[in-house]
Formats: sequence, structure tokens, C-alpha cells
Amino acid sequence: MTAGELVHPRAEELQVGPILLALADANRRRVVAQLAERPDEERLCASFDLPVAKSSRTRHWRVLREAGLVYQRDAGNGLYIRLRKEDLDRRFPGLIQAVIAAGQAS
Amino acid sequence: MTAGELVHPRAEELQVGPILLALADANRRRVVAQLAERPDEERLCASFDLPVAKSSRTRHWRVLREAGLVYQRDAGNGLYIRLRKEDLDRRFPGLIQAVIAAGQAS
Repeated sequence: MTAGELVHPRAEELQVGPILLALADANRRRVVAQLAERPDEERLCASFDLPVAKSSRTRHWRVLREAGLVYQRDAGNGLYIRLRKEDLDRRFPGLIQAVIAAGQAS
Repeated sequence: MTAGELVHPRAEELQVGPILLALADANRRRVVAQLAERPDEERLCASFDLPVAKSSRTRHWRVLREAGLVYQRDAGNGLYIRLRKEDLDRRFPGLIQAVIAAGQAS
């Protein structure tokens, strides 16, 4: 790991507890739902319209990343984020889809 | 509502946030998984083997009940608990099953 590199749990380390905790928040759930619409695409963190302060945004990205829901990359000109769809689908089949659907039904 | 009656959210009031927060805890997730094995049965709360203090047990039941995951009934000789399977399946199809499966894969 080089300086400034962001820490991510390995696929086999993913735990359902932190994932559910991360997804219990409506803003984070909305980010995951938007990422899931284009799972192969990386998206600029700044492009998400979150009704929260900058410090809260930073915390939301960290919670999502540390739970293993997203990969986050610092490209120098900005932070990029991408859903860990393959890892999540392999470890927890159907979970993310069910949570996204539930969020939209809620 | 009579004195001592336990408060439950109505089916149409269920929200995914409190449900995920409730299920983020491994002990509560285990209770829900055990209830889901026999969804038509009511079970004595005292029959669950939870490695926590009595005050924590009481809190766990309340979190599950207030999230709308369980019906809890005070029968005088003890508290009984039952999964709100029909309400949950109707509002959030596949969610509880996916979470239980994820908990067992975790």
C-alpha cells in the first residue's frame, strides 16, 4: 500500500453486519442504488447529490468502503467510487438487490 | 391500547432503515433466522440462548419489535415472540431471506 491509498476489505473478509449497518442509512442506500444501475461504471463521488455537510459525505464514503460495498479511488483530481458488485453477489447472493428494492418500496 | 400492551408499527408503516439497523446485530439476526425456521410459531423469548445481559435482551426484543420484524406478546407468564413474515414478505419481498442467507454465509 502506498501513501494515500485507500484501505478496502478483501472479498473474503466481507461481513453482513457492517454491510447492513452501512445500508441502514437512506443516503448511503441511495448511493448504492444509483451505483447499482451502472455497476460497471466508476463515478465521481462529487457527482452525488447528498443533502449533508462535507464532513458527513466523507464519513458516508468511508462507511461504504470499509463495509466492502464500494471501491473508492483517489484519482488526484477527485475521488471515484464503484460498487463491488461481483464480490457482493458472490458472497451474499440477492442481498443488495433485495435491499435496493426494499428501499424503493419503503 | 391497554396498560402493558406492547406497541407495534402497522404493516404499512414499516421502514427499511430500522429493519436493516435491527438486523445489523448478529444476535438479533440469529433470533430472526431461528424464528424464520418456523414462521407460524410463537416462541417464548426466554427460550433464546443469547450471550448478553438481561437488560440487553430486553433492548434486543424492543429493537426487533419497533422495527416491525416481530410481534411480541406478554402472556403474563412470559413474553412470546413471532416473526411478522407476512407483513415483511409483502412489503419487502426477499429481504429477510437474503439477510438470513447472508448471515449464514458471513
